[in-house]
Amino acid sequence: MRDCHLNKMPRGGTTTSRYEEDSENAWNCCSWFEYLLIVILSTVLLIGVLVLTLFWVIFYRGGFAWADSPQLQFNLHPVLMVAGCVTFSGFSILLYRLCRCIKHLYVKLTHMLFHACAIPCIVMAFLAVFESHNLVEPPKPHFYSLHTWLGLITMAMFAVQFIVGFFSFLVLLCCENRTYSCRSAMVPIHASFGLANFMMAVATCVTGLVETERQLVGETGLSTRNSEIEHYIMNSMGVVFVALGIIISVAVRRSNAPATAKVYVTERLEIN
Amino acid sequence: MRDCHLNKMPRGGTTTSRYEEDSENAWNCCSWFEYLLIVILSTVLLIGVLVLTLFWVIFYRGGFAWADSPQLQFNLHPVLMVAGCVTFSGFSILLYRLCRCIKHLYVKLTHMLFHACAIPCIVMAFLAVFESHNLVEPPKPHFYSLHTWLGLITMAMFAVQFIVGFFSFLVLLCCENRTYSCRSAMVPIHASFGLANFMMAVATCVTGLVETERQLVGETGLSTRNSEIEHYIMNSMGVVFVALGIIISVAVRRSNAPATAKVYVTERLEIN
Repeated sequence: MRDCHLNKMPRGGTTTSRYEEDSENAWNCCSWFEYLLIVILSTVLLIGVLVLTLFWVIFYRGGFAWADSPQLQFNLHPVLMVAGCVTFSGFSILLYRLCRCIKHLYVKLTHMLFHACAIPCIVMAFLAVFESHNLVEPPKPHFYSLHTWLGLITMAMFAVQFIVGFFSFLVLLCCENRTYSCRSAMVPIHASFGLANFMMAVATCVTGLVETERQLVGETGLSTRNSEIEHYIMNSMGVVFVALGIIISVAVRRSNAPATAKVYVTERLEIN
Repeated sequence: MRDCHLNKMPRGGTTTSRYEEDSENAWNCCSWFEYLLIVILSTVLLIGVLVLTLFWVIFYRGGFAWADSPQLQFNLHPVLMVAGCVTFSGFSILLYRLCRCIKHLYVKLTHMLFHACAIPCIVMAFLAVFESHNLVEPPKPHFYSLHTWLGLITMAMFAVQFIVGFFSFLVLLCCENRTYSCRSAMVPIHASFGLANFMMAVATCVTGLVETERQLVGETGLSTRNSEIEHYIMNSMGVVFVALGIIISVAVRRSNAPATAKVYVTERLEIN
């Protein structure tokens, strides 16, 4: 946030002309290649993992239903959780870090909007699995496996992050100048906590996937050709989840280093 | 690497005095608190996860053996893999990023030494599980589950990273000045790839843990008090693994931001 703010509104008189001359910090061919690679790869993986989950649930798990079939109701859980915690949240993080040419308030609003879209998905997914566990015969215990532990922590982190972020970076804008230092101090905490939350979500998805895959192996022993293909599809989903956790973390870490360099120089020039 | 190099040997005449006056980039109380928190928490978690794995294997899985008992031979696998891929590699990454007062070559050598210590652990762990899968009745298939897929990718990445890192940052030092630009260009790639490798290792550990835990649930149905306690121990290990993946990634991302700021300023001042 601070990068963009300073890039657009340099407070020192000399800094504007310095940006024009700035050849060292300008993006070279390699930086652009890296930027495009991250954007394309992340987009493909974020959409790809949702499509793969939908394909798996519809063709190998019998599709969706609500309370009339607990088994099919459960199927809403992986699809909605992947949509909310991975695809929407991942795009939200990426958009915030990679949008460099749009007014910063719009970037913040889009960032919030994507996270807001994740909320109904997460709530519905949670309700689906909760009801499905109650309705199945015999009822399954809640919050017992590693997946459920990680899922609970992830949801709690998401709620805290959304509420704190909403108040810190949007509501506090009503007194923009007086809250500037407070909001600046919050930026790195919000960024680190957000990345941690995304990685928690990925870990939760992977553990849930492995638990379901082990159940499949336990039930059928992969005796049929169909269950063997399903096993490979689930393994591929796992690899895509892990790849997503890594690429989003690398994207957030590396994508705007040249912009950061500009900020530091700007700040120093203003002080001296 | 570049930070340290520039901090120790500023090439511009004016920059040295600027460091002395540098009050904005100097670490304040909050930065020191964050630094100490990361060091202490990471150390506790890196050692804690190995101790927890040892405790679990010795008290709940019957301890160790070699080829005379395939089941106990398998037990070497989690302990040695956690020691090599998580504890040694994690300390290696942390030491490299957080050691700020020691000569840089010593930091690099310690970084390499920790990774070198991981190699025999990983090789032994791999041989243990390979032989155990062959010796057990009926023999288990190799490279079938998500855990094994991720494990193979992790080991391949580790080998590539070690060989490339060894040649780039130690062997090429023989012609220090002529290889400077090449080594500088390699630093961010090596850092990102190394972090990705650590996250892959964590994901591999978590998937392996969930697979074993599901096997336990499938076998005993958690009917005994002992197997229920084992289930909770394994869940806790999973939470620690995920916490480690997050904290190491945050530590690498945030720990020396003030140093980075100094470098950018230094570079700009030299140019102008």
